[in-house]
Amino acid sequence: MENELISTAQIEQLIDSKNVKEIRHLFEVVPEIDLAEACADMEDPKKIVFILKTVKSEFTAQFFTELPPEIKEEIVKYLSDDQLADILESQFTDDIVDDLEELPANVVTRVLKNVDKQRRTTINRLLHYEEQSAGSIMTTEYVALLNDISCDDAIRQIRKTGKNKETIYTLFVMDRKRNLVGTLDLDDLIFADGDTKVSEIMNKDFNTVNVNDDQEEVANIVKRYDLNAIAVLNNDGRLIGIITIDDIVDVIEEEQTEDISKLQMVTPLEDSYLETSVGQMAKKCVPWIVVLLILGTFSSLVLSKFEAKLTMLPILAAFIPVIMDTGGNAGGQTIALMIRGLALKEFAPKDFFKILRKEALSAAIIAVLIGIFGFIWFSIEQYFGIVSNGASIWQGNCWTGEFAAQVFKTSGLVAGTLAIAIFLSKMVAVLLPMGAAAIKKDPAIVSQPLLTTIVDVSSLLIYFGIASLIFTL
Amino acid sequence: MENELISTAQIEQLIDSKNVKEIRHLFEVVPEIDLAEACADMEDPKKIVFILKTVKSEFTAQFFTELPPEIKEEIVKYLSDDQLADILESQFTDDIVDDLEELPANVVTRVLKNVDKQRRTTINRLLHYEEQSAGSIMTTEYVALLNDISCDDAIRQIRKTGKNKETIYTLFVMDRKRNLVGTLDLDDLIFADGDTKVSEIMNKDFNTVNVNDDQEEVANIVKRYDLNAIAVLNNDGRLIGIITIDDIVDVIEEEQTEDISKLQMVTPLEDSYLETSVGQMAKKCVPWIVVLLILGTFSSLVLSKFEAKLTMLPILAAFIPVIMDTGGNAGGQTIALMIRGLALKEFAPKDFFKILRKEALSAAIIAVLIGIFGFIWFSIEQYFGIVSNGASIWQGNCWTGEFAAQVFKTSGLVAGTLAIAIFLSKMVAVLLPMGAAAIKKDPAIVSQPLLTTIVDVSSLLIYFGIASLIFTL
Repeated sequence: MENELISTAQIEQLIDSKNVKEIRHLFEVVPEIDLAEACADMEDPKKIVFILKTVKSEFTAQFFTELPPEIKEEIVKYLSDDQLADILESQFTDDIVDDLEELPANVVTRVLKNVDKQRRTTINRLLHYEEQSAGSIMTTEYVALLNDISCDDAIRQIRKTGKNKETIYTLFVMDRKRNLVGTLDLDDLIFADGDTKVSEIMNKDFNTVNVNDDQEEVANIVKRYDLNAIAVLNNDGRLIGIITIDDIVDVIEEEQTEDISKLQMVTPLEDSYLETSVGQMAKKCVPWIVVLLILGTFSSLVLSKFEAKLTMLPILAAFIPVIMDTGGNAGGQTIALMIRGLALKEFAPKDFFKILRKEALSAAIIAVLIGIFGFIWFSIEQYFGIVSNGASIWQGNCWTGEFAAQVFKTSGLVAGTLAIAIFLSKMVAVLLPMGAAAIKKDPAIVSQPLLTTIVDVSSLLIYFGIASLIFTL
Repeated sequence: MENELISTAQIEQLIDSKNVKEIRHLFEVVPEIDLAEACADMEDPKKIVFILKTVKSEFTAQFFTELPPEIKEEIVKYLSDDQLADILESQFTDDIVDDLEELPANVVTRVLKNVDKQRRTTINRLLHYEEQSAGSIMTTEYVALLNDISCDDAIRQIRKTGKNKETIYTLFVMDRKRNLVGTLDLDDLIFADGDTKVSEIMNKDFNTVNVNDDQEEVANIVKRYDLNAIAVLNNDGRLIGIITIDDIVDVIEEEQTEDISKLQMVTPLEDSYLETSVGQMAKKCVPWIVVLLILGTFSSLVLSKFEAKLTMLPILAAFIPVIMDTGGNAGGQTIALMIRGLALKEFAPKDFFKILRKEALSAAIIAVLIGIFGFIWFSIEQYFGIVSNGASIWQGNCWTGEFAAQVFKTSGLVAGTLAIAIFLSKMVAVLLPMGAAAIKKDPAIVSQPLLTTIVDVSSLLIYFGIASLIFTL
């Protein structure tokens, strides 16, 4: 009952034995993505070509779409112009455009040569929309109905023209002047009386997006109103395409990948991980490490400046890691909350002061709690000699008044610095993403490593600043 | 044409002036979520009660669902049992269950008292499915068709029974023994000849999930096959509910929030950010900071152990921040790639060695590049005296042979340590999430701060280890 994943070996065997009947049967019952994944692992692309020549193109259209670009490129070489035209004929225009964006120029030329003129115009137009715009993900295959026909006529028209459309669950209603005047859900049409006019049951208050809108905004609208498809208008307000929920799911995931990549300061990969070359990967990583390394110079400067103090009071060095890490960690938590809150529209830049007050309050509580815990923990560390050694200022582990005073002074210094660093870091972690969002920039611009670097410098300055005050060095 | 967001003031004014006609009109044309958000900001919950009493419950069902839990709780107090029953009547069972999970016990009791017996049984059952299981997000309102009826009869049945169902775009086909034998897309039904039997056009190879399956697995199947809805079976293989694409979108976002929260080591919030109290927020953050602080002790130990070396060669201290940060930053990039790759099913634990080889190769390239850049950069820092001061072992900035040798030795030490740390960190960043995935644990278990802490200790050990070798201290 449940479908089992098909294996590469199974398909290869069918191809090798030229079992055309069974191959055709497979394409009728197994989901295209499973077949495409199994075939992607084949060593010889000619085997896939055999499939494309054997199975009717209406069954292979989606299969072809799901193949990885490097395999498509290989396959296209082995196809005649007629065969290529045949495959393209059955594909949705937005899928062809996605393919063309990934294929080399000579293949693009061949593909464009093999679609009819009208489609070529559409494809060329879609190819020119900016990446991540509504236009770049829309499809032009939708069902348009006139507003003055009856529901029975509408169903008749859908039966006649809807078959090769991307969706018939949302229908787009036009007046006689070709203005979009409503949308109609197929279920409302099904439930309506056959004589009712489409204009009577359509949604007159419906959402549209502009072709240049960012795909993330489109996704937010579709999610918010639980839409199945949304209309895309050009600058003149004319309907030129639609975006369906399955493409929105891809957008949501793409945006999430982008957020998490930026958060960890790696340029988002353009292809999937396995398709990205090692050299590409280094290119996505190295520049950011270099930037952070250069920014790290400020921390080195601070430590260099206080070198004399470190030499006189070496135990200060032992707490540098904890000072450096804790602020960054605490701020990182806030960044996660900010980025997700903004992405999910739980709050907006207008809520800035509400968020700042809330985060300041919780940061203060966290700072105090960690300060108290830290004071106790650092005292224990010193009491048991975990931190401190022969070269330290303490004379052994004998709990004298002077020793105790030194222990508590040091613990107080470290714990106090931590508390301040935590508070500061969480405030920076609110200010930067919310500030970026307020000026319409990507809030994910503030990565965890960048925050850490900023907080490191300030924490070290605070640490040695207070140290200079309480230990007259 | 495009709908404008409605303001709280607008609605309040209509309520204050008891403009029933206009309020009813609003609920027919404005999306429920917009109305709910506007009403959520009202000071007086009685105003919402007025709406619920004025507008027909078929228009307020979704509106009620979208209200925040604390407002629902308030409102329920002001409703009579009849009014409550009336509102619940129009709601989808899965929405009621979601509400009940957030409302206090006394309200739950009242709600359960006011639904009919059959529904109460369903709700009770749904309430007992584990959080994040398929059962916890499914709905029981689906259309089931018999496989031996004609398409015309099927459409007739949908018209009669489909109205209060969550979706009619995917229909579930049963044999006479109530076994699920297929699914049917509404568009296939629309395009089919009226006399055709349902069994002839239904999908016989369809996906199902078990009621105990994790919601993330369900989401992966729905995304992979671009489904509109999926069947949920109990352990006996009987259809007991369905999950629709709009709920899957919520799951995708919830899982993403969880990933990013775990990555930054903060317990995911249960409610939205603005609904979470300051105390709750501290509770989600503090434990992790404490854990990291305690783990940080190992770094302190290392520094404590090498305190004598730091005193003799203070310039070593100045490079501690860069050593500590760079490894963590480089590994963090890899973590981002791993978590997204696994979440998007771009690869699976079986690809472990492929990934390890790829990441090892790119890590080696990155390590060498950063090593070379670091060597040059650290030499410049020392040459211009940015790092180094009077207390250092260098005698001023005069470029003598001895000075040059010391500069290059130090740069070599730091750059070499960085290269090793980068490589190590990226390897740990592959091993931990892939290892977790291999034993079916959540790969997001490896947070950025945890990786940083692990890498810190090893980098510092390597740093001072090499330092001890090349500077005979």
